[in-house]
Amino acid sequence: MFQDSSKEEINQIMKSAWSAFHIYRKCSLAERAIFMRAIASEIEALGEELIAIAGKETNLPEARLKGERARTIFQLNSYAAACERGDWLEARIDTAIPDKNPPKPDLRKMLVPLGPVVVFGASNFPFAYSTAGGDTATAFAAGCPVIVKAHPAHAQTSELVAKAITKAVEKAGLPGGVFSHVHGKSFEVGQTLVEHPYTKAVGFTGSFSGGKQLFDWANNRKEPIPVFAEMSSINPVFLLPEKMETAASEIARQYAGSVTLGVGQFCTNPGLLIGIEGKELDQFTATLAAEIEAIAPATMLHEGISKNYIQKRKAALSQTDVEMISVSRIEAGENQGQPTIAAVNAAAFISNPVLHQEVFGPYSLIIRCKDVQQMLEVAQHIEGQLTATLMATDADILHNSDLVDAVQNLCGRFILNGVPTGVEVCLSMQHGGPFPSTTDSRFSSVGADGIKRFARPVAFQNWSNALLPDELKDENPLGIWRTVNDELTKDAI
Amino acid sequence: MFQDSSKEEINQIMKSAWSAFHIYRKCSLAERAIFMRAIASEIEALGEELIAIAGKETNLPEARLKGERARTIFQLNSYAAACERGDWLEARIDTAIPDKNPPKPDLRKMLVPLGPVVVFGASNFPFAYSTAGGDTATAFAAGCPVIVKAHPAHAQTSELVAKAITKAVEKAGLPGGVFSHVHGKSFEVGQTLVEHPYTKAVGFTGSFSGGKQLFDWANNRKEPIPVFAEMSSINPVFLLPEKMETAASEIARQYAGSVTLGVGQFCTNPGLLIGIEGKELDQFTATLAAEIEAIAPATMLHEGISKNYIQKRKAALSQTDVEMISVSRIEAGENQGQPTIAAVNAAAFISNPVLHQEVFGPYSLIIRCKDVQQMLEVAQHIEGQLTATLMATDADILHNSDLVDAVQNLCGRFILNGVPTGVEVCLSMQHGGPFPSTTDSRFSSVGADGIKRFARPVAFQNWSNALLPDELKDENPLGIWRTVNDELTKDAI
Repeated sequence: MFQDSSKEEINQIMKSAWSAFHIYRKCSLAERAIFMRAIASEIEALGEELIAIAGKETNLPEARLKGERARTIFQLNSYAAACERGDWLEARIDTAIPDKNPPKPDLRKMLVPLGPVVVFGASNFPFAYSTAGGDTATAFAAGCPVIVKAHPAHAQTSELVAKAITKAVEKAGLPGGVFSHVHGKSFEVGQTLVEHPYTKAVGFTGSFSGGKQLFDWANNRKEPIPVFAEMSSINPVFLLPEKMETAASEIARQYAGSVTLGVGQFCTNPGLLIGIEGKELDQFTATLAAEIEAIAPATMLHEGISKNYIQKRKAALSQTDVEMISVSRIEAGENQGQPTIAAVNAAAFISNPVLHQEVFGPYSLIIRCKDVQQMLEVAQHIEGQLTATLMATDADILHNSDLVDAVQNLCGRFILNGVPTGVEVCLSMQHGGPFPSTTDSRFSSVGADGIKRFARPVAFQNWSNALLPDELKDENPLGIWRTVNDELTKDAI
Repeated sequence: MFQDSSKEEINQIMKSAWSAFHIYRKCSLAERAIFMRAIASEIEALGEELIAIAGKETNLPEARLKGERARTIFQLNSYAAACERGDWLEARIDTAIPDKNPPKPDLRKMLVPLGPVVVFGASNFPFAYSTAGGDTATAFAAGCPVIVKAHPAHAQTSELVAKAITKAVEKAGLPGGVFSHVHGKSFEVGQTLVEHPYTKAVGFTGSFSGGKQLFDWANNRKEPIPVFAEMSSINPVFLLPEKMETAASEIARQYAGSVTLGVGQFCTNPGLLIGIEGKELDQFTATLAAEIEAIAPATMLHEGISKNYIQKRKAALSQTDVEMISVSRIEAGENQGQPTIAAVNAAAFISNPVLHQEVFGPYSLIIRCKDVQQMLEVAQHIEGQLTATLMATDADILHNSDLVDAVQNLCGRFILNGVPTGVEVCLSMQHGGPFPSTTDSRFSSVGADGIKRFARPVAFQNWSNALLPDELKDENPLGIWRTVNDELTKDAI
C-alpha cells in the first residue's frame, strides 16, 4: 500500500531533520511542552477513524485500542509536564572560587539534545510504542527531531498519526524537519536510517533479531550512536514455598489472566512460572490448566506473529522432557493464538537454550524445581529480563535472600505478589533491563526518565550570566531544581 | 618486570569479583564511603616512596605528581561524600492509587550497581586516571567490584597503589574480590578481561585505537556491555574577531602555556587554534611563535609516547599547505617533546583528515579562516571533542549564534575565554563528549555523575515498606533526596 522510501528520500529527510534540529533544540521547555500537548490534541481529534483503521490493521479490540490511545495521550501530556519541570536536565552549578590555587572556574552543566532520533514503531502497540509513542514523545521533550519508520503491519494507522503530528508541527510554527514519517518493508530502509550520519540515536521496540541488528549497525558506524532497543523478555515468576501453601490456586487464576492478556502479545508476558515440586505446585498446575482450557483463542496482531507463535510453541513443546499441561478447549481459528501451558523439570530447562527463548503469544512454561536451591540455579541461568516477579510471603523473602538478590540482578522491574503485565506510566517505572531484554539497562523507555536516552550533558565554563541558557542563569528564571555547590535547590544564586 | 596475567588467572579473578559483587552491592552508602576514604588514607600513607617510583616510571616532575596525588585523594573523598549524599541514586517513588482503574501499584526506583568493572589505567595520569583514579572511585561508589589492568608504563606505581587499595579492602572487612590488580603488556589480557562474562562494564582513558578496540570487543560479546572510553580530542579554540582586536597577544601568551603544559600530554590540550586572517591573527601568531621558541622541551612519559609524537608531528607538518610557524629554540634531548606550532588555511584543513587527528604532545595548529562563515565550516567538519573554547566578547557571541551553536554541538565542555587544560573535579564538570572523544557522550568520567556509568535503575513494584531497601523506605531513613509523586523532597511519606 505504501512504497518504501528510497535512499535519496531518506537523505533529504535526514538533511531537513538536521537543519530543524538547530532550531528545535533552542525551543524552550515550555515551547516543547506546548508542541507535545498539541500532538495529543491532534490525535484525540482523529476520533473514531483512528480506532477503526487501527482495529482493521491490528485485530485489536476497540476497548483495548481506546485504552491505548488514552495511554498515548497521557504519555504525551505527562512527558510534556516533565519536560517543563526540568528535573531531567540535571542542572548542576559550581560557582567560581577565584582565590583557590589554581582558581576554580564557574562551571554549569545541563543536558542538551543529541540530534535527530530514528524511532521504529512496534507491532504490538500501534499507538503507545509507535508513531507518537513513548520514544517519539521523550525525544521531542529532549529537544530532538524525530524520524519514525512506520511498522508495516499498521502503516495506515501510522500514516494517520503522522498527519496529526505534522499538524501540530505546523501549528507550533516549527520547521517541517522536526518530524518525518518513513515507510519501509525492506530492511534497507532501516539500515539507511540507522547508518545516516545525521542520525544521532535510535529507539526501537520489537524482536531480538531486529533490535540486535540495529544495535550492530549503529556500533559499526564511523561514529557509533546509542540505540535503545527493547527486545525479548520472558519475565520469570518465582513461586516461593510459603506463599504457595496458602495461595496456589489463587495465583494460578491470576496468572491464567496475565498469560493470555492481549493474546499474550506483551513484552511483559510471564513466560516462565518457577515452582517447587509437591502438592502445592500440583494444585497450582491443575488450577492453571483448568483456567487455560476455558480461555478462548483470539486473533493475533498479524499473520506473521501468528505463524511465529505456532512455530516457536511447537519447537518448545518438542524439546526433551517438556510436557504439555493444558491447551484451550476451543479450537483456534485463522491467525488465532491458542492458550497453552507446558512444564519441564529444572535440569532440562537449565541445559536447553531453546527453552530460554521468548514464545511470543499466550504461552507459559512451568519449571519444576526440587528445592529453593535449584530455583536459585534457574535464576542464575536466566538472561536479562524486563521484569521478574516473586510470589512470596515476607518470610519467603527473608529466608531466601540469595534467591531474591539473584532475581533482582537479572531484571529492570522487580514485582512482589503481582503480575508483570500492565506497565504504569510514571517516573518510577523502569522499562528496560539487562541484555537481551534491552541494549542498555541504564535507561528506561517508559516514564519521563526516558528523555535522558536522547540527551547528553554540556558543561559551560566561565560563561557570563547573560550569555548562559536560562536553565543555568543565576536568577533561575525557570524555577527548576538545580544542584548548586552540591545542594539541590530552586533558589537563585 | 611483571608477568602478564594468564587466562586462567583472569578467570579466577573474575570469579572472585563476581562473588564479591553479591556482598559489596549490599554495603550501605555509608560503608562504601568509609571504604573509599580508607583507600585515600592508604595512598597518603605510601608517602614519598610513591612519588619517587612514579617519578622514575613516568618522568613527571615531583610537583606535578604531588598535585596529582592530592587530586586523586580529593576524588576518592569527594566521590565518597557524593556516594553518601545519594542524589546519584535517582530515587523515585510513586505511591499506589488502589481505586484507579486499573489500580496503580506502588512503584519505587533507584540505581543499583551493574557488576564487576574493568578499569584500564592511563599512561598520562599515573594516579588520578589509573589504579585508584576516577573510574575506580566511581565504580566503588556505585557498588561495583573493580579489576584494574595496570598501565605497563607505570606498573610498579600501579602495584603500590593496588597494595594500598587491598589494605583498605582488608580493613573494611570486605571480600578480596572487591578489588583485583592485573598486569598485561599484551592485548590478550585486555581482551580476556573485556570478554569475560562476569565483566559488566569497562572504563578506559587512552588512545583512540585502544578505546575503540575495547568498545568493539564489548559490543561483539554475546551480552554486550557498556564501555566508557575517553579517547582522542584536539580541543579546538575559536578566536573571534572582536576579542582578537584587543587581546591577540594576551591570548597567545595564555595559549603558549596551555599548549605546552605537561609537555602537551593532556587529553584537553588545545590542538587547533582557529582565527580569521588579518593583522590580529598575525600578531597572535607572532607572539605565540616567540613564546614557543623560548619554552624548553621536556621529557615525555615514555619512549613510545615520544616516538609517537615525533612521527605524528612529522606527518602533520608534511601535509599540503601546512606551514611551520615556530619550534622551541632549545634542542630536544632523548624522549623530549619539542614545542611546535604550525599553521594551515581552512580549506586545506577541512579537506585533509590527517590534520583532524590528535598529535599527542606540545603541538598546536593555527587554522586561518577567511571569515566567520569559514570558521563555521571548520566547526562543522570537526569531530566530537571533550572541550571546545571560544575566545570572544559578548558581542562576538551574540552576533555569531550559528557558530556558537555549532561549536557547542561538538563538545562536552564549552569554555569561554579560558584554556581547556585544567579539569576541575566537581559535579558540574563534564569530561566526556561526542564520538570519537568518548564512546558515550551521555556520561562523564570526572565528577560524581561518573558514578552513573556503572549503575542501572531497578523498579520495585508492590513491595512492603519493611522489605524495601533503606533508600526507598517510607520514612527515608538515609535522609536522601527523592522524587515522590513527581516532587523532589527529603520528606518521609
